[in-house]
Amino acid sequence: MKPPRHRPLDAHVIPRFAGVRTFMRLPHTTDLAGVDAAAIGIPFDTATSYRAGARFGPEAIRSASALLRPFHPGFGIDLVETLSIVDYGDLPVAPGDTEGTYRGVEEGLRPVVEAGVFPLVLGGDHSITLAELRQLSRITGPLALVQLDSHTDTWEMYFGQRFFHGTTFKRAAEEGLIDPAASVQAGMRGSLYGAADLEDARALGFRVIPSDELRALGPGRYAQTVRERAGDRPVFLSFDIDFLDPAFAPGTGTPEIAGFSTAEAVAFLRALRGIRLAGADVVEVSPSYDGPGQPTALAAANILWELLALRAAMA
Amino acid sequence: MKPPRHRPLDAHVIPRFAGVRTFMRLPHTTDLAGVDAAAIGIPFDTATSYRAGARFGPEAIRSASALLRPFHPGFGIDLVETLSIVDYGDLPVAPGDTEGTYRGVEEGLRPVVEAGVFPLVLGGDHSITLAELRQLSRITGPLALVQLDSHTDTWEMYFGQRFFHGTTFKRAAEEGLIDPAASVQAGMRGSLYGAADLEDARALGFRVIPSDELRALGPGRYAQTVRERAGDRPVFLSFDIDFLDPAFAPGTGTPEIAGFSTAEAVAFLRALRGIRLAGADVVEVSPSYDGPGQPTALAAANILWELLALRAAMA
Amino acid sequence: MKPPRHRPLDAHVIPRFAGVRTFMRLPHTTDLAGVDAAAIGIPFDTATSYRAGARFGPEAIRSASALLRPFHPGFGIDLVETLSIVDYGDLPVAPGDTEGTYRGVEEGLRPVVEAGVFPLVLGGDHSITLAELRQLSRITGPLALVQLDSHTDTWEMYFGQRFFHGTTFKRAAEEGLIDPAASVQAGMRGSLYGAADLEDARALGFRVIPSDELRALGPGRYAQTVRERAGDRPVFLSFDIDFLDPAFAPGTGTPEIAGFSTAEAVAFLRALRGIRLAGADVVEVSPSYDGPGQPTALAAANILWELLALRAAMA
Amino acid sequence: MKPPRHRPLDAHVIPRFAGVRTFMRLPHTTDLAGVDAAAIGIPFDTATSYRAGARFGPEAIRSASALLRPFHPGFGIDLVETLSIVDYGDLPVAPGDTEGTYRGVEEGLRPVVEAGVFPLVLGGDHSITLAELRQLSRITGPLALVQLDSHTDTWEMYFGQRFFHGTTFKRAAEEGLIDPAASVQAGMRGSLYGAADLEDARALGFRVIPSDELRALGPGRYAQTVRERAGDRPVFLSFDIDFLDPAFAPGTGTPEIAGFSTAEAVAFLRALRGIRLAGADVVEVSPSYDGPGQPTALAAANILWELLALRAAMA
Amino acid sequence: MKPPRHRPLDAHVIPRFAGVRTFMRLPHTTDLAGVDAAAIGIPFDTATSYRAGARFGPEAIRSASALLRPFHPGFGIDLVETLSIVDYGDLPVAPGDTEGTYRGVEEGLRPVVEAGVFPLVLGGDHSITLAELRQLSRITGPLALVQLDSHTDTWEMYFGQRFFHGTTFKRAAEEGLIDPAASVQAGMRGSLYGAADLEDARALGFRVIPSDELRALGPGRYAQTVRERAGDRPVFLSFDIDFLDPAFAPGTGTPEIAGFSTAEAVAFLRALRGIRLAGADVVEVSPSYDGPGQPTALAAANILWELLALRAAMA
Amino acid sequence: MKPPRHRPLDAHVIPRFAGVRTFMRLPHTTDLAGVDAAAIGIPFDTATSYRAGARFGPEAIRSASALLRPFHPGFGIDLVETLSIVDYGDLPVAPGDTEGTYRGVEEGLRPVVEAGVFPLVLGGDHSITLAELRQLSRITGPLALVQLDSHTDTWEMYFGQRFFHGTTFKRAAEEGLIDPAASVQAGMRGSLYGAADLEDARALGFRVIPSDELRALGPGRYAQTVRERAGDRPVFLSFDIDFLDPAFAPGTGTPEIAGFSTAEAVAFLRALRGIRLAGADVVEVSPSYDGPGQPTALAAANILWELLALRAAMA
Repeated sequence: MKPPRHRPLDAHVIPRFAGVRTFMRLPHTTDLAGVDAAAIGIPFDTATSYRAGARFGPEAIRSASALLRPFHPGFGIDLVETLSIVDYGDLPVAPGDTEGTYRGVEEGLRPVVEAGVFPLVLGGDHSITLAELRQLSRITGPLALVQLDSHTDTWEMYFGQRFFHGTTFKRAAEEGLIDPAASVQAGMRGSLYGAADLEDARALGFRVIPSDELRALGPGRYAQTVRERAGDRPVFLSFDIDFLDPAFAPGTGTPEIAGFSTAEAVAFLRALRGIRLAGADVVEVSPSYDGPGQPTALAAANILWELLALRAAMA
Repeated sequence: MKPPRHRPLDAHVIPRFAGVRTFMRLPHTTDLAGVDAAAIGIPFDTATSYRAGARFGPEAIRSASALLRPFHPGFGIDLVETLSIVDYGDLPVAPGDTEGTYRGVEEGLRPVVEAGVFPLVLGGDHSITLAELRQLSRITGPLALVQLDSHTDTWEMYFGQRFFHGTTFKRAAEEGLIDPAASVQAGMRGSLYGAADLEDARALGFRVIPSDELRALGPGRYAQTVRERAGDRPVFLSFDIDFLDPAFAPGTGTPEIAGFSTAEAVAFLRALRGIRLAGADVVEVSPSYDGPGQPTALAAANILWELLALRAAMA
Repeated sequence: MKPPRHRPLDAHVIPRFAGVRTFMRLPHTTDLAGVDAAAIGIPFDTATSYRAGARFGPEAIRSASALLRPFHPGFGIDLVETLSIVDYGDLPVAPGDTEGTYRGVEEGLRPVVEAGVFPLVLGGDHSITLAELRQLSRITGPLALVQLDSHTDTWEMYFGQRFFHGTTFKRAAEEGLIDPAASVQAGMRGSLYGAADLEDARALGFRVIPSDELRALGPGRYAQTVRERAGDRPVFLSFDIDFLDPAFAPGTGTPEIAGFSTAEAVAFLRALRGIRLAGADVVEVSPSYDGPGQPTALAAANILWELLALRAAMA
Repeated sequence: MKPPRHRPLDAHVIPRFAGVRTFMRLPHTTDLAGVDAAAIGIPFDTATSYRAGARFGPEAIRSASALLRPFHPGFGIDLVETLSIVDYGDLPVAPGDTEGTYRGVEEGLRPVVEAGVFPLVLGGDHSITLAELRQLSRITGPLALVQLDSHTDTWEMYFGQRFFHGTTFKRAAEEGLIDPAASVQAGMRGSLYGAADLEDARALGFRVIPSDELRALGPGRYAQTVRERAGDRPVFLSFDIDFLDPAFAPGTGTPEIAGFSTAEAVAFLRALRGIRLAGADVVEVSPSYDGPGQPTALAAANILWELLALRAAMA
Repeated sequence: MKPPRHRPLDAHVIPRFAGVRTFMRLPHTTDLAGVDAAAIGIPFDTATSYRAGARFGPEAIRSASALLRPFHPGFGIDLVETLSIVDYGDLPVAPGDTEGTYRGVEEGLRPVVEAGVFPLVLGGDHSITLAELRQLSRITGPLALVQLDSHTDTWEMYFGQRFFHGTTFKRAAEEGLIDPAASVQAGMRGSLYGAADLEDARALGFRVIPSDELRALGPGRYAQTVRERAGDRPVFLSFDIDFLDPAFAPGTGTPEIAGFSTAEAVAFLRALRGIRLAGADVVEVSPSYDGPGQPTALAAANILWELLALRAAMA
Repeated sequence: MKPPRHRPLDAHVIPRFAGVRTFMRLPHTTDLAGVDAAAIGIPFDTATSYRAGARFGPEAIRSASALLRPFHPGFGIDLVETLSIVDYGDLPVAPGDTEGTYRGVEEGLRPVVEAGVFPLVLGGDHSITLAELRQLSRITGPLALVQLDSHTDTWEMYFGQRFFHGTTFKRAAEEGLIDPAASVQAGMRGSLYGAADLEDARALGFRVIPSDELRALGPGRYAQTVRERAGDRPVFLSFDIDFLDPAFAPGTGTPEIAGFSTAEAVAFLRALRGIRLAGADVVEVSPSYDGPGQPTALAAANILWELLALRAAMA
């Protein structure tokens, strides 16, 4: 018997402000039978260099996601008719213990990845992406990273710690989880410790597109660059909410001014239609710094919805 | 086979900030087998006279309730070992339609009440209590009302509407859902439209204890008054969060200064140990007026936990 | 004897932060002798599907409007020398009763409309526009609707209710208050329940311009489209504050990301110079979700000022 | 012909959240015929030593005062049936110019005082009280000051300026506007620059009651002290909102912890029933530091209402 | 030559809102010559179980401390004339690494402790107290702990980690840094995981005074209990800001309702006059959850000032 | 002996959230030996026409500046290796006394200017720029003013006061401190009192570029205009934070909608590379109106960093 397609609560019976808060008002279950995509929280923020609080990111994103409806007018796709989606809940994390959390996340993601379910992760600080990539790449092989972020996160170390929200992609490259030659980091801006902050990423093999260059490229040529780099590789898209300007996403740990609007972000993402998306996350939502009404969480929920649409567009 | 006792997520495996937000991190289910008590949201605020927003009360209370642990040191009772408790989710409401909502709430509560499960309601504005009383009193007969509130909510009408958050207990008396002679309203304060605001409640038969008198009585004599009035009647305890001072509960629709602290509120509630509690609610939490960190929701969650303890103390 | 021209408080005698808060510091009166335009509040939010609170919209807009000065540099017009403007106060509303409120608004607007005074309405949720259109179209005949909004508000029903902030323009078309063939809805974006959300509006005859298309058109071609559609019809301009991005207008009930900046909104409005504006409103300002300093209310006050300028430019 | 008694908007026709914000929803007029009491704003904050912003105090207090109903249950008095009250608007102030503002306030208050109307002032920082006392004492002679405050405001000078929110009562004593021997300052607490901060006030002749002593006295003996000091003198009651603890009144310029609750404040005020109240003010409400929902302004509005009740109780 | 006494900026030359923010506007130096007491920040929050953010505690407390004046009217002592006090700055911490931070704190405190300077620590989460006690007890021997807190912090472990903000005093007892038999923990309240949460602390030898008992004791008998337990031992006073009720201190990580007011806290502390205070800290101030105007930080700054007064009273 | 180059705290030893808050974590000293540039606070807001609070601007900017790293990727310059920079602290101000403050600022700036140190001022309301220009022009002669602002600040008078935040540049022109013929004011927008608001500035000789024109010019032609006007004159760049849209800078006193993004502002500033920058300030940051996480202060800190880069690019 075919498992039922999961659908959100019916907003004509249960108003969108009602009900236990799950992602997009989808069922919360860890039963993956027939599931195509799973929203998964990783509420971790120990590996943060400035403002903490991303441990409450998944809760805030789930709350804001009550506003998400199923139909994507840009692609003409009904997400929940195309994909059977669930809220898988949060993976086990160990506050204060990054490596212990990595073990928990890797183990927690295993059944999802092994079931071929598309993982859509709600962060948490950017350190968690490493554990996601470890588990996902076991199935997919080295991934093409498509990162939208104001920082490259390719430092070597932080206060003696190799695992940290600013070292994720150096580790990922070293561990062979991603193929830098197939990867694109875009949106970098703000003050740096030195020229090396960007050059080190390039030395690792990444294509690094600072914000001014990205603005000049526009969505079309950006997407072309991504497609050329990624080729046939499965793609992991990691969206750090600080890619957005603080006016659009104040609730984050290391904000940088002169960033992108949500309209720009959506345009960049929609231009990627057709990439082979194998996994994705939105990270660094820190609700205690968000504005009233939690606009950052709303932006994150919508970005996650755009990522689901990219996956649905593959179906 | 005996149904399993429901327990919250283990905070030593899943930290308290993690996981989908249900009341006290208890399972969200509508299966009532073996259940002793159910937390139930009624996210309704159409019947509000000043500040709206209580439709988001259940969400905020669930979020804050992640801080609640099971053991009650005042009573020496482990709530979740004494009662099998679930989060039943939210009842269907119709925003903009008070009487339609009443029908939905009455119907929605029926299986809970018929199963003998203790209903612990997360409001919503105070209009919803009428629907709760209608359903509950079908089983229990007229209830003794124990109301902690800064207003008596015994008006006749509001803008031509008989069902409204300020008319609930006049309607409840008229409909015979409660026995005013067995009931106590306490905590009244603030400016009035006229002396009738309190006198009308007394004329209906309620014992009305304004805040100054309540303060003078103290927990012991207040509880004695309640016990004398309620006698053997089953009790419905309705706690309007505006019983608390705005310093302790800013997030509410019609705040009145010179109110009670949470320490005072807890003392009044604990003094009631031994009453025959048949149902309870905490209403009028309006999160968009709450402070950062949502202290009003935290107070409401703790008050609900005290109400569960009163019920558990009967076991 | 000619009635005196109304003017705001003199900011060189009474600083702008001083004085009872009326719109633009204009006199608050219901005497319409010699009056050209009246700012009118309709503090209603019962017909809201997500976040309530727009009942406090008129107060917040009045507060922010203290910053408005009389001279419009874009048009080179002094608004208060061109038009005699008053603050007419708020129309009677019945919280919890949409149809009762409609009756109150229609009756309340009658003397304004019959006196030929330009009504400039401060909402309130979008349901109120129906009552405005009912009264105004009695004089003007069917109006051309120029709507800037992220939603078309052309649903059929909501929780059994035909009158609701998402059904306004379907009702207005059905009741013949507006001529869809002369009307333009622009700015639509965000997730939908289905393709029908936009198609239904088009089936009613509206020209629907989603946000991406609007951005591509730019102010000039947008205004040309409006002029071609409206022709000689009198125009009602309805500005839902959620046309703006949440970065610019966080204080609203159903925010959608990827919206417009205030600079873009102003440009679209100024391009409309020359339309036959018969009435206008700005709706859905929900102050309890606004940021510190109430930027949404400030945006709304300025949009209202641009609408007055469009009217003044006709003089 | 007897002028009509002024009454607030009828809350059964115009809901309390509706209408232009005047104090207690009373008519805004400067016509004093038949008027017994006038609420008057003085939006000035130039003379502030720490956090500015009290210029927006009158607006915030008017907004919060929409919640005030006419009947005082403690005294059994309907305020608006006992006194004909109006909102007189704001007096002219000159931001940046304390002495110029004093001239404006003195002149602005003259018609009120000369008409025998009870002035109830909404501040503004505490410097404004000097101008009030200057004008009022012209009629009454030296007043008995009853001050509830966390500071005595009896400094000599501040940055070379003799007129400042911390020097008001030294100036008032020097100018003979008040009789320190008839006056009581109560509620003083917090860190001091030196023992002289309190001793100087005592040397001027004031009775100074620090917060610990006031708490020990309780309302009854406090009121007895006031009555003994004031004797037959007309009383000016000046209530600095920082008398309240920051938990109850966060929105003020120089908060001091370990203060009083609103319940305590109300008890102290009600105990004063029977004093010959000739004028009163509530000062130092600084809304930009207030919590969501503006609890400080709500407290101030209620304190003003208690002061009106003290005046009404004389009738 | 005697080193100069350090004094704060003169508020009559540099207003209190001006200048680089150091504790009490005292000089920021690490030169300890002639210094009696040093305010020291430990901005660490990795070891937090619920809301993070205490890493910004020292900054917020320094900001609020600009309001502290030197003279303590309760004791009649001028703090800065009695003690030469400096702001020593922040000790090195390693975010994400509790044990590494302990090493940094221990090393960083060594020169202070060895110079006989009184350490007054601005936390940081409660885990940091262990490192403070390790360094201080090297000189003093086992200390008498006087803890005001809503939790005992005597757990064994948290997510496999022995060093954590809930295990501090179990570790301190095990390591012999404090003498439980000489120690008093007071203020405990809120829901527990089990009766063991308090019993374990008692089994370690602590005198545990829950909040209800503390309220009944009052300041006098509480202080007597402390004196009897501490005897001649040097005392370390650790004040967790969650001892205060969330109305008074919303900005903290694990708030518990029904707590103490600042007036109560000050009374308990002043009653301790005469204890041999060897060190002290105020911890768990989490500014991103604080209210506008940062009342929690203001409370913390004043508590630290009371602790300085206790030390000064020994001089 | 050459004085040492000043450098910020090392973020790999002291995390960026730690340490006493100075600008860019640079040393706080008034010793100017070897210093190239000095960040200087002027915490003054008496001369404000609408919202006060800019007295706390320097504190908030210093706090946010902890996020600034030394390397400027746009110019390829390490600021702290190119310039030896210090935090000079705040200049003495007299709250309530504008002219007294001018004297204090002029005197306080003298040693900086005479030492040839580049003054980078953190405001404060815009009135302070006059005092800066007075002192700086003593050395440089009349300066070319490059002002980015939504207002020209060329009024004659305000409430009888000639020195005020809206009269600064009229006074500066009259006093010969700046050469209007060499100066450019850009970004003007919003409602005006009359056409004269802009025409008066032009009559004084300024080139005034309203926001629409500035947007059309773009960074390149704007910079060309500035260069043509300024010629060889030393330049003073005054950046009023209200140049930015309220979405990007809500925390300011007289916000105007339809403003510029931080990305646009940065582009305009970087295009100015090569001008002879002699002094600069960023004014009108009013933190109590800022959003959570203080985005306005972050924008201001980054603008100041861009100004330092313009100066460093001259080296």
